[in-house]
Parts: sequence; C-alpha cells; structure tokens
Amino acid sequence: MKVLQARLTPVAFADPPLLNCMGVHEPFALRSILEIECEDGVVGLGESYGDAAFLEQARAVVAALPGLDIFDLPRLRETVAQTLDGVMITDTHGLTGGYSIDKTLASVYSLCEVAALDAQGHYLGVPVVDLLGGPVRDRVDFSAYLFYKYGEHQNGTSDRWGQALTPEEIVTQARTMIDEYGFESIKLKGGVFASDQEADAIEALAEAFPDHPLRLDPNAAWQVDTSVRIARRLDGVLEYLEDPTPGIDGMAEVARQAPMPLATNMCVVSFADIAPAFRAGAVGVVLSDHHFWGGLRDTLALGTTCDCFDVGLSMHSNSHLGISLAAMVHVAAATRQLTYACDTHWPWKTGDVIESGVLEFVDGAVAIPTTPGLGVRLDQDELGRAHEQYTRSGQTNRDDVTYMRRFEPDFTPNTGRW
Amino acid sequence: MKVLQARLTPVAFADPPLLNCMGVHEPFALRSILEIECEDGVVGLGESYGDAAFLEQARAVVAALPGLDIFDLPRLRETVAQTLDGVMITDTHGLTGGYSIDKTLASVYSLCEVAALDAQGHYLGVPVVDLLGGPVRDRVDFSAYLFYKYGEHQNGTSDRWGQALTPEEIVTQARTMIDEYGFESIKLKGGVFASDQEADAIEALAEAFPDHPLRLDPNAAWQVDTSVRIARRLDGVLEYLEDPTPGIDGMAEVARQAPMPLATNMCVVSFADIAPAFRAGAVGVVLSDHHFWGGLRDTLALGTTCDCFDVGLSMHSNSHLGISLAAMVHVAAATRQLTYACDTHWPWKTGDVIESGVLEFVDGAVAIPTTPGLGVRLDQDELGRAHEQYTRSGQTNRDDVTYMRRFEPDFTPNTGRW
Repeated sequence: MKVLQARLTPVAFADPPLLNCMGVHEPFALRSILEIECEDGVVGLGESYGDAAFLEQARAVVAALPGLDIFDLPRLRETVAQTLDGVMITDTHGLTGGYSIDKTLASVYSLCEVAALDAQGHYLGVPVVDLLGGPVRDRVDFSAYLFYKYGEHQNGTSDRWGQALTPEEIVTQARTMIDEYGFESIKLKGGVFASDQEADAIEALAEAFPDHPLRLDPNAAWQVDTSVRIARRLDGVLEYLEDPTPGIDGMAEVARQAPMPLATNMCVVSFADIAPAFRAGAVGVVLSDHHFWGGLRDTLALGTTCDCFDVGLSMHSNSHLGISLAAMVHVAAATRQLTYACDTHWPWKTGDVIESGVLEFVDGAVAIPTTPGLGVRLDQDELGRAHEQYTRSGQTNRDDVTYMRRFEPDFTPNTGRW
Repeated sequence: MKVLQARLTPVAFADPPLLNCMGVHEPFALRSILEIECEDGVVGLGESYGDAAFLEQARAVVAALPGLDIFDLPRLRETVAQTLDGVMITDTHGLTGGYSIDKTLASVYSLCEVAALDAQGHYLGVPVVDLLGGPVRDRVDFSAYLFYKYGEHQNGTSDRWGQALTPEEIVTQARTMIDEYGFESIKLKGGVFASDQEADAIEALAEAFPDHPLRLDPNAAWQVDTSVRIARRLDGVLEYLEDPTPGIDGMAEVARQAPMPLATNMCVVSFADIAPAFRAGAVGVVLSDHHFWGGLRDTLALGTTCDCFDVGLSMHSNSHLGISLAAMVHVAAATRQLTYACDTHWPWKTGDVIESGVLEFVDGAVAIPTTPGLGVRLDQDELGRAHEQYTRSGQTNRDDVTYMRRFEPDFTPNTGRW
C-alpha cells in the first residue's frame, strides 16, 4: 500500500490571549495538516506544529513520502533521518524543554507516522487503537486546562472566556469549562504571577471544587527553594506539581522534598532524558506527547518504560485541532500505564479542519472512535479557510515573548524568576 | 472478529541429551500448541511451554477464549489475570530465573497474544511484523547454540551430533552447525564443567572461528570471583558473558570488573526486574523472550526500555518448534533496538508441527515471512504424531536434574558451584 501523493497544509486558528511563563498566545495558533493519498483511494491524516522551522523540515520529508509503503514505518523513520540529516529544530515558544536532533527527528517522524497509521487503519478497516494493541479503556479522560488570560488581544479581539487574572476569575473559568465538558482533573497553567499568587488560585480552586484533582504548571518559573515552599504549601491539594523548576538536577532536588509527585514535559522530552532523570529520581510523572515522542508507537513504549520505574504517565498538550486529538485519544486508549487524565487545549479553540460530531466530551472524556483509522475526516472547506487564515495572519512562528512585549514592554520570560 | 473455538495440544519431540547446569535434557522436549478458530474461518496459532503446571493454567485460559475479540488484547490480558487469579507457576528446569505471578501471567498471556496476532494478520491480510510497526530488517540473525552433550540417552537413543564433552568435540559441533546454517555468532551453553575447562572450549572456538563473535552461558554456575577471573581471561574473546553468577547483586559486582558486557535471561526476567538491575548496572544485555515477557508487543516495548539505559538486546531461546520461531522472527524483525543475533535451539530438533519450507536458515539468518499472520501453517498429521509422542513419552515436566541422576547418581545442580 504505497503513498501516491502527500500534501502538507499550514493552518491558523484563532487563539485567545492565554498567558504562560514565556508571555501570551498570539491571535492565531499555527498547525500543519498532512494528507497522504495512497493506492485504492486510501487517505491518511496527520497534524503537528505549524511554525516555519518545523514546516521547512516537514515539507522536505513530505516530498519524500510518495512511493513509501504505509506499513514500512522503519523505512519512514530512515527517510526522515536521511532527509533531515542532522538538522535540529529549535522552536521559539520554549515550553517543551530542550532541543535535540533526536527530538527533531521524532517530531517530524510523528507527523508522518500518524498519517501512515491512519491510512493503515482505513486500508485494513480497523481503528488505530487496534493497531496499537486494542483499547485498554473505551473513553479517555482529559483535564480542564485553565489559563490566566487577558480579556482581549492587542487588535481588540475578545473571546467568550473574558479576562482571568485573579483567583476568582480562574474559579469562574473552571466552572464554565467543567459545566460544559464535565472534566474531573483541573490544571492551571502557571508561571505567570509570583508563586504564592498562583498557589492562592489553586487553593481557591480546591475550595470551589473539593473533589477535583488539581495540578499546577509554572513551566519552570520557580527556583528550587520556591518550588519546595509552594509544594509544601499545596501538600494534599495537588495531585501533581508540573515542572516547577528548570532541569533534571533542580527537579531532583525539589522532588526529594516535595510531598507530591513532580510531573514534566520539559526536563524529560526524549528517550535520551529518561535514564538521567529516572536515575536522579527527578520526576514522578512523565507527560507524554506523541508529537515529539516519535509518534503513537513510541509513545506507547514510553508507558512501559515509565512503569518499570514506577513513574506515572500523563499527557501533554499544545494548542491543537481534531486530528491531533484523535491521535491522542487512540494512543491514550491503548496505553495501559496511563495513570492520569490527559491535558488538552480543546476548549480554547473555536474552529477545526475535521468534520464535527466525532470527538465529543462527555463527563470530561472522549469516547474512542470505532470507525477505521483515526476515525476523523477532513473538511476540505474548513481546511481551505484555515489555510487562508494562516496566510492572512502573517504569523509564521509562535513567539509568545515578543507578543507579550506589546502588553508589557519590559517583559522577559519568567523561567526561574521566582 | 471473535474466537469461536480454542484448542491447546501438548506435544513432545525428540531432544538430544544436552547438558546444562541443571543436568541434562530428557529424551523429549515438551511444548503446547494453541489453535484459535475465529469467525470467517480465520485461524491463529501459538506455541509455548508443555510442562504440566503451565498446561494446567494455560488450559483454564484457553477455555475462556471463545467469545473474545482477537483485537481486544487488553480484554485478553484481563481474562488471563482473572482466570489465573494469583496463581504462580514454578517450573522445574530453573534456567530462566525467578518466578512471580507477573511472569506467570506474562507467559500464559503470551501464548494467547501470539495466536491472536496471528489471527489478526490472517484476517487483515498482513504479516505480524506489520502489526508491530513493520520490519526494521528483512532477515533475523541467529547464533549457533552449542551444547556439551552425551552421545546417547539412557534408553540408548543416539543422534547425529554425537558426544561433545571436550573443546575439540565442541569445535566439531560448531563446525557442523555453522556449515549447515551459516551462523556468525556462536554461543556455548556452559555451567557443566569447571569454569576453566569451559574457558578452554571458548578459546578453542576462538582459534577455530576467529571472525565469529562468541558467547558463554554458565547459567549462574559461578561465584563472583570465578566470574571475574574467567571474564578477564576471556577479555577480547567474548562479545558477552551470559549469567555467570546468580542474582542482580552478584551480577552487578561482576559487571563492575568484567571487560565485556554481561547478558541475562535469569536476573532480569520481567519488567519488575528492570529498575533494580539497571540501577545497579548489573547487565549490559537483556535477552528478551516473548514467551515470558508477555508476548510480542511487550517484548517490543522492552527494546525501548533497554535502549533508554544503553542496555543491549539479544534473544533467549528454549527448545521450541516452528510457531515459536516464526513469532521470534517477527518480533525480532520489528525491534530496532535489537543489538545481537538471537539464540535458537532450532538445529537440535528433528521434527515440527508446521508445514516445512517457510523458515529456512541462510547465512545464519531467517527471512521474515511475508504472507499473512506468522506465515506458518499447522501440519495436522505432524501435530497428531507429536501429541501421540507426548502421551507415550510419559514426561509431563522438564526435569533435567532427576534425569541427570540416571547418568550421575550424586548430581546436584551446579548453580554457584564454581
């Protein structure tokens, strides 16, 4: 089953001014959509990053896809390696840890692997989860992903969520999101305000939602002593504390004194980070993400590795559309070592490139699509509109820092600030 | 795609009097053959151990297979766990390390998982390797597996290999095997004679086959100081030294002083052993074996875990027939972290239950079957004969120790002897 044609389309979708330690989300989030057309009319879909550096490398690989067998994933991996030939992509948003050639390869490979698996599923008539060993669960739980946010963008665009800068506003945001989606776990993206101010917000959430597991993710905005102090303050309140401080050594020092597990999608971002982090006891939970962990099969294998070392497994999310959510759902469904609800930015997006009606949230969970492949279909009209939006947006990279300086001229990233 | 019927057939095949640290192989090796018949005439095959304790547990699970969906491997795993409900199988041959409930579950699950994957492949029209991510290699390398052996069994049955008790006889055995199969790596099963005597045999092999990587496996027959001494003596001669001494602590002590990597299929035999062994630096090579590592998918994931910690991967073998070899070949072909030629007892067997002609050794390697499923077909006549042989043999367990006492009345296992 050979690939006949492959097409990569950059798209943009409206994104609210969500705050994080690097700054604030720009008016549009960028993604890339991969379509591979194979023999017998079989189509496979993939979705990944949309920044220029990623697109350049992904485009080179996508051009090499025609002729490849969708079942020959090792050959696909080789093709990615040969095409990239030592290139390392360094993104500008800085929210998913270090860069490496391995991580670059894993990211570009993942985009193509997901499309190949989708195509395999369509060709064989089985959902992707069955190609991964079958569903351990028939629904995948997600968490409410709360953000501090401005009420409107610099261009005056507002959104239905409004401003959220105080504990009260965060609780209101949580209530809306939980009412609409039914989430259990609640995650607050931190790293925006001083640590105690964010701990206040967590305590307000704990009071408002006493039965909901809570998480706080300052994206390494804290020093070790601050991390330990806040961890102790939030003892019994957080199910895990995510990336309080930079690096494996710092995380290990915090982990030794923190009463809750530390989670990460910053200091463990490729298989090369596993041994040093696990040996140091730096993390209690790895947040997988098939987009940079080398696709669905490697993400599955990550679960086994974590489980061997009694390290829990959750799932990281960037701003994404439906193809990515479908892939996240399939791999999460197949991963028996998944120990926490997954993150998703889903509530923050307004449109999509897939036909609606498949990926619905009920009680905070998405049912595994049971139709072939990923179970989602591209809406070509929406894809066209989203691509037009990409072109019109003028954005080619995600750069929360520079955009933040339009709100706060003297802003520098908060990494390690407090 | 549901299972309609499942049948487990114990079989026996003639086995030469091969020596190891526990004694000597009895006249017959026992295996069990699983056939699952599914809707639409789809059939899946599995093969595993044939001892009474394994058969009892496997039979209980096999009786629960009808009605299961061959794609729902998580449900299969649950079914195995519920059926066995805490039972732990302790084999009597003692050559594959410790016992645990996890290892028992993994063993019985593996038998069924392989049959389910074979059935999936037949239903979908793809080889099993494609269900595992595709072939990283199109041929799988195996090693020549040499044994000290007696010339004949107690009942007078002899074989074409003759006696091999001296270095010269071992070299002759190697020459025959390499001439016929084309193996590169050569493994000598040790633990039979005093350590220096076995090192003599390795040195004789090194002289006779200077370009062939060599391995020695005394099955933990040595103390730590002996292990270190022999490891130093064989510096530059062995590609790895396998299980010189018992336990993770002992292995770690040897590993610190040995110039070559230590391999194991005794101190790391389940995922629970990974963390303590890797943390201690006890092993440089894990010998996987899908029969007790929980099937093909978990064996694949083991590769990722080993690679994270720079631990090599090879493959262990027990006496086996063609269904097992096919499964070994498919999973080895899909495992990109496989760093050594795999072990196989293949040259020692005389018959089989599969139709011949598929699994041929050329230059020491087996080409991956490209037909659906495992790519092998059961020969019902041969299965009948092998089952009859099982019944007639009177053997119900593998017990090399007791049988050895018919050669040497005072024999006790050599574990830790030298």
